[in-house]
Order: sequence, then structure tokens, then C-alpha cells
Amino acid sequence: MKAFNFLLDEIERGLTVMLDKGLPPKFIESYLKVCGDYIDFVKFGWGTSAIMNKDVVKEKISYYNDYNIDVYPGGTLFECAVLKNKLDQFFEEALNLGFSAIEISDGSLDISLDLRKEAIKKARSYGLKVLTEVGKKLPEKDKELNINKRVEMIKFDLSAGADYVIIEGRESGRGIGIYDEKGNVKEDLLKAIEENVDINKLIFEAPNKNQQVYFILRYGPSVNLANISYEDVVSLETLRRGLRGDTFNKLQY
Amino acid sequence: MKAFNFLLDEIERGLTVMLDKGLPPKFIESYLKVCGDYIDFVKFGWGTSAIMNKDVVKEKISYYNDYNIDVYPGGTLFECAVLKNKLDQFFEEALNLGFSAIEISDGSLDISLDLRKEAIKKARSYGLKVLTEVGKKLPEKDKELNINKRVEMIKFDLSAGADYVIIEGRESGRGIGIYDEKGNVKEDLLKAIEENVDINKLIFEAPNKNQQVYFILRYGPSVNLANISYEDVVSLETLRRGLRGDTFNKLQY
Amino acid sequence: MKAFNFLLDEIERGLTVMLDKGLPPKFIESYLKVCGDYIDFVKFGWGTSAIMNKDVVKEKISYYNDYNIDVYPGGTLFECAVLKNKLDQFFEEALNLGFSAIEISDGSLDISLDLRKEAIKKARSYGLKVLTEVGKKLPEKDKELNINKRVEMIKFDLSAGADYVIIEGRESGRGIGIYDEKGNVKEDLLKAIEENVDINKLIFEAPNKNQQVYFILRYGPSVNLANISYEDVVSLETLRRGLRGDTFNKLQY
Repeated sequence: MKAFNFLLDEIERGLTVMLDKGLPPKFIESYLKVCGDYIDFVKFGWGTSAIMNKDVVKEKISYYNDYNIDVYPGGTLFECAVLKNKLDQFFEEALNLGFSAIEISDGSLDISLDLRKEAIKKARSYGLKVLTEVGKKLPEKDKELNINKRVEMIKFDLSAGADYVIIEGRESGRGIGIYDEKGNVKEDLLKAIEENVDINKLIFEAPNKNQQVYFILRYGPSVNLANISYEDVVSLETLRRGLRGDTFNKLQY
Repeated sequence: MKAFNFLLDEIERGLTVMLDKGLPPKFIESYLKVCGDYIDFVKFGWGTSAIMNKDVVKEKISYYNDYNIDVYPGGTLFECAVLKNKLDQFFEEALNLGFSAIEISDGSLDISLDLRKEAIKKARSYGLKVLTEVGKKLPEKDKELNINKRVEMIKFDLSAGADYVIIEGRESGRGIGIYDEKGNVKEDLLKAIEENVDINKLIFEAPNKNQQVYFILRYGPSVNLANISYEDVVSLETLRRGLRGDTFNKLQY
Repeated sequence: MKAFNFLLDEIERGLTVMLDKGLPPKFIESYLKVCGDYIDFVKFGWGTSAIMNKDVVKEKISYYNDYNIDVYPGGTLFECAVLKNKLDQFFEEALNLGFSAIEISDGSLDISLDLRKEAIKKARSYGLKVLTEVGKKLPEKDKELNINKRVEMIKFDLSAGADYVIIEGRESGRGIGIYDEKGNVKEDLLKAIEENVDINKLIFEAPNKNQQVYFILRYGPSVNLANISYEDVVSLETLRRGLRGDTFNKLQY
């Protein structure tokens, strides 16, 4: 039972995707006792999975699985597999290691729509949940993606079979994807997205507190958020529940 | 015995209040071996206590108690209890969980002076140490508190029985309480405070290194500081002792 | 064997010097399973070693030694020993605690060249590896060091017997040493250095990701980098290997 449970309201909680960029296995084991119930997906950021030993990766994933958390390797690793023409081997290795989801992206590599579609379908055929990401890693490239193209891309991925589409924000949350240089949300882009797509199929990368507050105040605690630092999972849950000053007494459930 | 103890000077150390926003229990257990001697209070930030399981909260507190550290839930949780009209239940649950102190604040909620006084007295009657906080969470509201009002409020709390009064700085240390937009101390406010109140009854929230350095250079190592990140407790102790460049050879004991 | 090892290229990896400013021993033990292979030196920042118990320092060092990592106390502690005229005691205590390297610096204290040279030789006679640091902790003092003086100092240290010379960047990486106020590299200084000194004998303090990316893109993955946060060691290794967007498909090995 939760401490101070008489102060908690019932909420419909959105997905929380945590970023793991190299946490020690034993740390994770104890960490999940604190907030394992509030995490739905964990991403092993970019190519970090590839430089760890197999047994370490497996041990980490097993702790997450104990809390029914799906783990997936970052999209950059997928792109690395595409670049090296080893896509099947990549999916098979991911399954062997215990990953239950995969991220399909083209943040650093140009990938044709045909290949993107094929990769989504192939990942599903392997039994993997599929998250795709729309956005480029380099600001200059990301700026070339206009609003219409982004919305089209989201629709394309969903119709190709993606379970969720992630809206790029990177680890910094500034000058990229849905954020301007100061880390504020680009209103026109967000409006175009919400008018054209089911918001429940989207996950917004929101690494900074002000961004998490923004999305919760706009869409309520059920909004899906990604790139949450492991240090912020507890804080995010309190924001969703109005237990922190920024959302205290400001939410309707 | 301390390593390199022949390089350590004796100091009169002020209180250090650490912010715990969700640390894993096993992490805390090992962490305290490094710096448990340098922590006096731990705050479970805002409402974070309420979303953890009771046994996790109890386990965490017990590790802190092994080092004679008092633990208290953040003021926002107190305000939540006021809002829901469950103050007695709140104090009783706090005691049951092992908390030995409490924070009384009105950062997010307007609370009458009568109720504030009553809450301080009631907490003391439960045997809890009482820390109060002066300041608002929202910058626009915080700005309405002029210097005189802040000084009056501090005096009010102390005469009502507060053990210490915390001067608001939040987790960011910018544009709030005693800090301007850049995180620098507001000199006129600090002067008014130090001229009217016993500085030893105050605890300054100083989350950033430059703020910790500022207070130590101004008041010496005996100044009381709060909202110290768990990652900065060791650093703060070295600052108090002149073992870091910023205060090296600049302190008189 | 590494997970996804078929996606890894062989690289010639430069030295990675991690900053430990007070990590718990048990955390380190599990942490090293993730990335112990990618760390060459660990610095116990500034005077942090001196406020921990001897057995804690020894336990921490022993975990690092299991991965053949050399550990050394920060230069500020060396300067503290000079100030207190206890240099021999300092070296002996360092050896007793298990440190296998030492940092010689004058960041906070004016130290004569004669004494600097003597300290380097004495440390070597104790069997310690010697890293020296060129740069001052205070920006106003650091600015007085012009380009020629810095280059001369580097040469002086190497000819006196230093194994490596560290180029100052502090923990912040801004407005100090080789970085301007925004944290960008000072090109003219770096050019003067690389034209006059063997780059393999230098270690650049590069606490921020953009700085790590800069050096890797300029010198390749074999560049030596220091002041790497424990949270960034995995990320740095992926940057060296082109497994993160910032260096993906941009490196020649």
C-alpha cells in the first residue's frame, strides 16, 4: 500500500518511457522498488546496448521485466544495422537478449519509405512491439522537415503498423523536433499534429520538467511522455497527480 | 578515521539538508557510508513520499536514521493534506512511517496565519521537529511577497514554535525566493533578513554550487543550507572545509 | 561477449578519465560491470578523498583496480598538502590507501617551478603515475595565463617526468582553460598546443557532450578525455564508436 494513500486521487496515467543510458544492474533492481509501477517502456539510449556485455544487458532487462516494463534499444542502433545491412541479425539478437520492443527511426540516416515500412512489418512479424520516431538528430536536417511532412510521416508509420509514434526531442529538449531553441513547444506544429492524429498513439519526448508540466496541463495526466531521465520518473508521477507545485490543484481528473 | 585526516581543519559545520526525490533504498545504504556524517535532515521532495509503497518509505528512513538523520516529507504534501482537510491523519501517518520532522509551508496554497500557527503547534505536540518555509512556488506569486512581509513571516514562524525556517529557492535556484533570474542572491532581501533574525535559525535553499559558495564565504562553514542534491553533499562538505578551489585558502575558522 | 557485437567496429580508443565526486562503493561495484572496460583513470575530485573514511576509500579503489583502473586524488588535495607543508605524508598516505597515480597542479595555489619539478620527481620515486594539470581554478587568474605560457608549462611538465598533462576545463567546462564563456574550444590555444606538443601526452578535460564530440571529430576516437561524469562514460564510448547521432557515420577509424 502507498504511503499517504489517503492523499492520492485516482488518475488515468499515460505511458512513461524512461531513458536508460547505462544504469548499473543492481541499481535498477532497487530503483524499481521505488517507481517500477510508473514505467511502461525503457529505452537503452541510442547505441549504448552494443557496448555492454550480453549478460549485463540480459540482467538489466530481466529486472525491468519483473515490473512488466518493455525494453527496447535506441533507434540509432537500428539505423546502424540498416547501414551495415544486418537487419535480420539485429532483430534476432534483440529477441535473444530479451528486448520486447524496437524503435524504428531515421534520425541519423536517410531511409526510404519502402524500407521503413518493411522494417516495421518485419519487426512485428518477430513479435516485437514497434515504436517509430519522427525527427532528425541534427538541427539543420530537422528544420527541413516541415509541419505537413511530419504529420504525413506520423500517419504513414501508424498505417504501416507502428504501435506508437515518438515525437523527437532528444536528451536536451532544445532546438529540435517539437521544441524551439529555448525548449518551448512549437505551438503550430503541435496543433497540426493533434488535429490530424489520435494523441493516444503519440509519445512526446519531454526531457525537461517545464515540458512535462506543459503536456500534463494541456492534455492531462494521460499524456504519453518519453526520454524521461531515471531521476525524474518519480517527479513525473507527482506532476501527473498534482503532488508538485507546478501542477498542484490545477488538474481535473 | 578519515583518509588524509592530517589535511583536515576542525570546523563548526552548519546544517545540511539533502533533497531525496526518489533514491533507491539500497543505494542510500551504501551512499551514507560515504557522507552520512555530513547530513542532518533529508527531505523527501514535495509529494514524492505519497507514491511509494509504505515499506519502501520505511526502509529508506531507517537507513537515514542509522546516521541520526531526521527525515521529513516535502511541504507540498502538507499543503495537500490541508487542502483535503486531513491534517491529523497526515501527522499520524508521518509518524507511523518513521518521519521525525515536518515541513509547514504555503508555497502552492493560501493558508491563514491562524491555521499555520495551529499546524506548527500540532506538529510539535506530535513530537515532530518543525521546519517552515517562507516563499511561493510560482514566481508571479512569490514576487508579491515583499521584503517586510518575508521578514515578518520568518519571525511569526519562529515565535509560533518552528525549529528552523527555510528560505525558498526551489530545486532550480533561479527567479524565486532569495534568488534573481540568474540565480544570484538578492542582497537587499538577505540584508533585511540577517538584520532582523538569528541566522542560526534559518536554512537557505542553495541548490547550485555558486550559491553554496556564496553563503559559505559570507557566513562561514556554519551556515545552514538546504535543497542539496545527493550528488553535492560531498562537494558541499569540501566547500565548507576549503578543500575545493572555490573556497580553498579563503576561509577563517 | 558484447551485445550486438556484429555492429561494432574496431577502434583505437583514447584514455577516458572519469570524475568520481563521491559515488557509493556498492554502486561502483555494479556500475563497472556496465562500463569498467572503458575507463583508464578515475579522479576522486579535488579534496573529496579527505572527508571519507579510510576503509571507504580503500573499498572504492579496490573495485576500480579490479578493472585495471588507476585512481588518483584531485590536484586541490595535493595543493592542500603543499600549503600545509606535508608533501611526503601526502604521498605515503595516498599509497597506503591504494592510489596508484597523483595529480600535480597549481590551480588554487602559487607553486614555484622548482617545487613543481621536485613534486613530480618525488611522486615518481614513490612509484606513482603522474598527471599534471595546467590551468587556474579562478577565471580571473586563468586569464593571465597566455598561450605561450601554457605551452611552455606543458613542455616543462613533460620534461620533468609527467606521464600526461591535463588541460583544465573544470567540472563546468565554461569560461576556463581551453573553453570560452559558452563552453566552446578556444581554437587559437588548441592550435598552438597541437603544433608544439605530442597530442597523445595530453588529456583534455571535456565535461560536456558537445566538447567530447568536438575532440572526437577533430582527433578521432583515440583522443584522451578527462572530467567525464560517471553518467557519461557509456555515452562517450558510443560517441567514440559512432553509435550516437552526433558522430554516427562521421568517423574514420
